[in-house]
Amino acid sequence: MNPALPCVISGMRPTGALHLGHFHGVLKTWVALQAEHDCRFFVADWHALTGASALPHDEAVYEMVVDWLAAGIDPERTTLFLQSRMPEHAELFTLLAMHTPLAWLERVPGFREKADQHPTYGLLGYPLLQAADILAHKGEWVPVGQDQAAHLELAREVARRFNHRSGRQLFPMPQARFSDAPRLTGLDGQKMSKSAGNAIGMRESPASVHAKLRAMPTDPQRVHRHDAGEPERCPVWALHAVITPSDDRADLAAGCRTAGIGCLDCKGALADRIVAQQAPWRERAAALEPKQVHWLMEVGTERARAYARKTLREVREVLSFQAEA
Amino acid sequence: MNPALPCVISGMRPTGALHLGHFHGVLKTWVALQAEHDCRFFVADWHALTGASALPHDEAVYEMVVDWLAAGIDPERTTLFLQSRMPEHAELFTLLAMHTPLAWLERVPGFREKADQHPTYGLLGYPLLQAADILAHKGEWVPVGQDQAAHLELAREVARRFNHRSGRQLFPMPQARFSDAPRLTGLDGQKMSKSAGNAIGMRESPASVHAKLRAMPTDPQRVHRHDAGEPERCPVWALHAVITPSDDRADLAAGCRTAGIGCLDCKGALADRIVAQQAPWRERAAALEPKQVHWLMEVGTERARAYARKTLREVREVLSFQAEA
Ligand code: SF4
Ligand code: SF4
Repeated sequence: MNPALPCVISGMRPTGALHLGHFHGVLKTWVALQAEHDCRFFVADWHALTGASALPHDEAVYEMVVDWLAAGIDPERTTLFLQSRMPEHAELFTLLAMHTPLAWLERVPGFREKADQHPTYGLLGYPLLQAADILAHKGEWVPVGQDQAAHLELAREVARRFNHRSGRQLFPMPQARFSDAPRLTGLDGQKMSKSAGNAIGMRESPASVHAKLRAMPTDPQRVHRHDAGEPERCPVWALHAVITPSDDRADLAAGCRTAGIGCLDCKGALADRIVAQQAPWRERAAALEPKQVHWLMEVGTERARAYARKTLREVREVLSFQAEA
Repeated sequence: MNPALPCVISGMRPTGALHLGHFHGVLKTWVALQAEHDCRFFVADWHALTGASALPHDEAVYEMVVDWLAAGIDPERTTLFLQSRMPEHAELFTLLAMHTPLAWLERVPGFREKADQHPTYGLLGYPLLQAADILAHKGEWVPVGQDQAAHLELAREVARRFNHRSGRQLFPMPQARFSDAPRLTGLDGQKMSKSAGNAIGMRESPASVHAKLRAMPTDPQRVHRHDAGEPERCPVWALHAVITPSDDRADLAAGCRTAGIGCLDCKGALADRIVAQQAPWRERAAALEPKQVHWLMEVGTERARAYARKTLREVREVLSFQAEA
């Protein structure tokens, strides 16, 4: 934690071990941001409760954090913590709720669509809880996908209103840090996701990576080895597009279009790339002891709480609550 | 705090010094409940934020708590605390929000009416925050007015759902303890309230009590001393009805109806009653030192937090959150 650097804050729902979609969509950005920011990354286990899915388990949290560390998140520089251990976030959520017009939340795009027929109060308030997560840390940069731009806009409105009402610039305006990563394609050509069963795990074994790629569908018009193919029609290519450097990609595309290479060659080249990228992840993960991971989260959570506690003291002071003795 | 006794929990918004309406409507019941319950009474300063009114000030909290103590709340037996110092309540509110259908809150009677044109998210969630206040203490009895029956019903639904989902009877079903006190009439014949400016303060001076009553309107048909009056038409009588014992009331009513007594006699008798009832309040309040009051709240808040923290540990355990190391 280096308060001299601009603060980046971001959370991830505990979904267990991560896949390549997580890495290329989010984690890669997190890792890169560490160099010049005071980063705080957290396990968004409260947010997980808004879903219909099963409750987060220690296991799901543990495996995800191992993947963070495997990817290169450096707990020396970056603060890792558990949202469910931050009563200060809940307190800020509660306080902000009192002054946040219901209409602001009702108009956040996606609420009515995402919500099933019977949304919960917490689901409606989800963007406000995100605002509290950010503001408790006076977050300046928030890595978000385009689909979450409206959530961040709400956090900004809430911060602006609080600052305005209190006549103090307590909260910096959090800014969106949009990722330019396209969504990673899964084994079936659809978006890679755990629930779709089309994912390649970050720590998947090399044998399994090769086997999964071998089984992938390719350009449907390339039936035989001697048929020329068109990469743009091929789901394997969508993976190359993210994972393989463009020089190599040019060669592969030419090979495909001239039937100079077979699909198994093309898939093998991709599998090799993936396995090579995974190597340091597997290495780092193998070096981690469960005790050490728990301890890292423990230390990070205490560090984050100390910071959030300070923010909440300021917030309470602004709201004229009676100070602690 | 005696966990062997059934727990009573109740809060009051910090409105500063209390008036007779507060005493007869709520505080009298609180004092009586102490004998056979483990009572926890709190300053509902978060709730105060949902209103359009000014923010709660230390002064408003202090004066109200002094009136609690003046009325006979015994901090040896009863736990007094500040809601805004209980992050555990906010945490429970946040967790319960995730599973509470929005529709449950939208249908709580009074929300759309009470809410101005632009209700806040927190105002909609107000009954859920009350539920969290109660459940964090595993409250069994909640003194409420009839108008809050629906709020308590929501707390029961929320507790029932949580117990059902978790397969554990973590929360007892909170029960309403309805007060049979009628609303106290103010100096103008309307409901006594601070904002209406028609109140008699609990610690109002005897001279002021007499002066305020002398100025009260009476039966509009009793214009002269020799006119017979009808108590049922008289706002002074509405105060007698709550404050004067029935035997004495019978004499006064007869005197009014026969013009045997004048209105000043009748008002004087009422003022004497009020002043006599106030005497021990004034005495107790005069004996309190500000430091002592702050210290009582401090000790009470710590005691209440220790209890609520335990409840929250159980709640987190049920929700499978990672335990503290
Ligand atoms: S060679 Fe590669 S890009 Fe071309 S169809 Fe086969 S797998 Fe797809
Ligand atoms: S005598 Fe008492 S009850 Fe009758 S009109 Fe006067 S004030 Fe009212």
